Amino acid sequence: MTKHPKLTLVGAGPGDPELITIKGVKALQKADVVLYDALVDPALLQYAPTSEHIPVGKRAGSKASVSQDTINKLIVEKALTRGHVVRLKGGDPFVFARGFEELSYATKFAIETDVVIGISSITLPGLYGIPLTCRGVNQSFTALTATTSEGKLSEEVLSAAKYAPTAVIFMGLNKLDQIVAAYKEAGRGDLPVAIISNGSLTNAQVLASTVNEILTIKEEERPAAPALLVFGEGAADAAWIQKQVFHQERKIA
Amino acid sequence: MTKHPKLTLVGAGPGDPELITIKGVKALQKADVVLYDALVDPALLQYAPTSEHIPVGKRAGSKASVSQDTINKLIVEKALTRGHVVRLKGGDPFVFARGFEELSYATKFAIETDVVIGISSITLPGLYGIPLTCRGVNQSFTALTATTSEGKLSEEVLSAAKYAPTAVIFMGLNKLDQIVAAYKEAGRGDLPVAIISNGSLTNAQVLASTVNEILTIKEEERPAAPALLVFGEGAADAAWIQKQVFHQERKIA
Repeated sequence: MTKHPKLTLVGAGPGDPELITIKGVKALQKADVVLYDALVDPALLQYAPTSEHIPVGKRAGSKASVSQDTINKLIVEKALTRGHVVRLKGGDPFVFARGFEELSYATKFAIETDVVIGISSITLPGLYGIPLTCRGVNQSFTALTATTSEGKLSEEVLSAAKYAPTAVIFMGLNKLDQIVAAYKEAGRGDLPVAIISNGSLTNAQVLASTVNEILTIKEEERPAAPALLVFGEGAADAAWIQKQVFHQERKIA
Repeated sequence: MTKHPKLTLVGAGPGDPELITIKGVKALQKADVVLYDALVDPALLQYAPTSEHIPVGKRAGSKASVSQDTINKLIVEKALTRGHVVRLKGGDPFVFARGFEELSYATKFAIETDVVIGISSITLPGLYGIPLTCRGVNQSFTALTATTSEGKLSEEVLSAAKYAPTAVIFMGLNKLDQIVAAYKEAGRGDLPVAIISNGSLTNAQVLASTVNEILTIKEEERPAAPALLVFGEGAADAAWIQKQVFHQERKIA
């Protein structure tokens, strides 16, 4: 007898495998098949030891990544033939991810769906002493992707450079020169900037600078992808908590 | 012998007690004292059965809430006399919370600090089919509090009303008329709006409307606090996933 077809989107969180939720672990324990992203720590597959594990890794710049269309079809095929598919995605399934496309495609085939939200990388700056909002300074922040689906600079970078007190920019490292130019054009050359790489892991790297100065640091000395950019006053405070948080080696599950 | 004084800030997530992380549970298991907010589910205290539990609840409008200054001093007193204090906060400790103030105050007393980030309510709209970003429509969203520390409307609401394709507004329900006025003033009367109340719980309520129409719905028929407001095109899609997610009763740990 075929099992009841089901898709559960699970947010694995921002890298550290202990930053998955209890609910996410329970979903993995009930999975027949797990489709997981490249940014997800394979240690999490230990929660689903008897299920089928399929990497469908999407990583910036990777030639080997699987297309969204292929992932959608694989989800449906596996749900209809194997039962419960857990789609394990880095961060949160809905924040700069494509959870909606996967859910709505599965729904067309009358597959039951559920969602377990996860920690988005948006919250990583806090780990490094970088407040996204600060009483008396600013009460909002803007999150955006720097890169459109065609690989171009998003026009919303220009708007953030003009109007956003604090911006958290995803997929921006390889467009850093264009983003810096937009902030300079907006007259914000003195604004602090931070690059946070591998933000929740023991190999995290954080670099703090300013709009005017950051490009004077050689590219090979800047933290590498996957990385977040933070443009805002809070970035000036970078790193003091980092020393607190990482003075002991972090343990991995 | 006095135990080693330590403070760990832990984000409990957006309400559902199963949306705490594995790392958060491990911190609770090592706590000597737990200071918890009003929005945190007391079921989470089961992970720290032998520790001292102190509610320091801050809830909008509550007269009985403990001041931030009192919380800071209590953290230090308990760390110095009892050992490991876990400060369990709703959502994430750094997103519209005051984790930095608590950390920096404790650091002055040479108390070791650590942080376990959590799921911010920012990700809740996804559970109700409301994309904060949508390929081809918008690639950014802005998160903000509607209320300043003096209880007034934040000026950044006016900026978001003009410039933010999508805004997620915290603590905005009792300023809904002023926020709606700002969006109308900016010529965005047709923009979809959603109110999401108790977003990750079984008693969640979601209302979708538009800037022009939402105030025509009687206040007692709108979802109640704690609530998030979403102003953006994505809010027009509200509720189709809700039926999927909540067609079965959600289980609480």
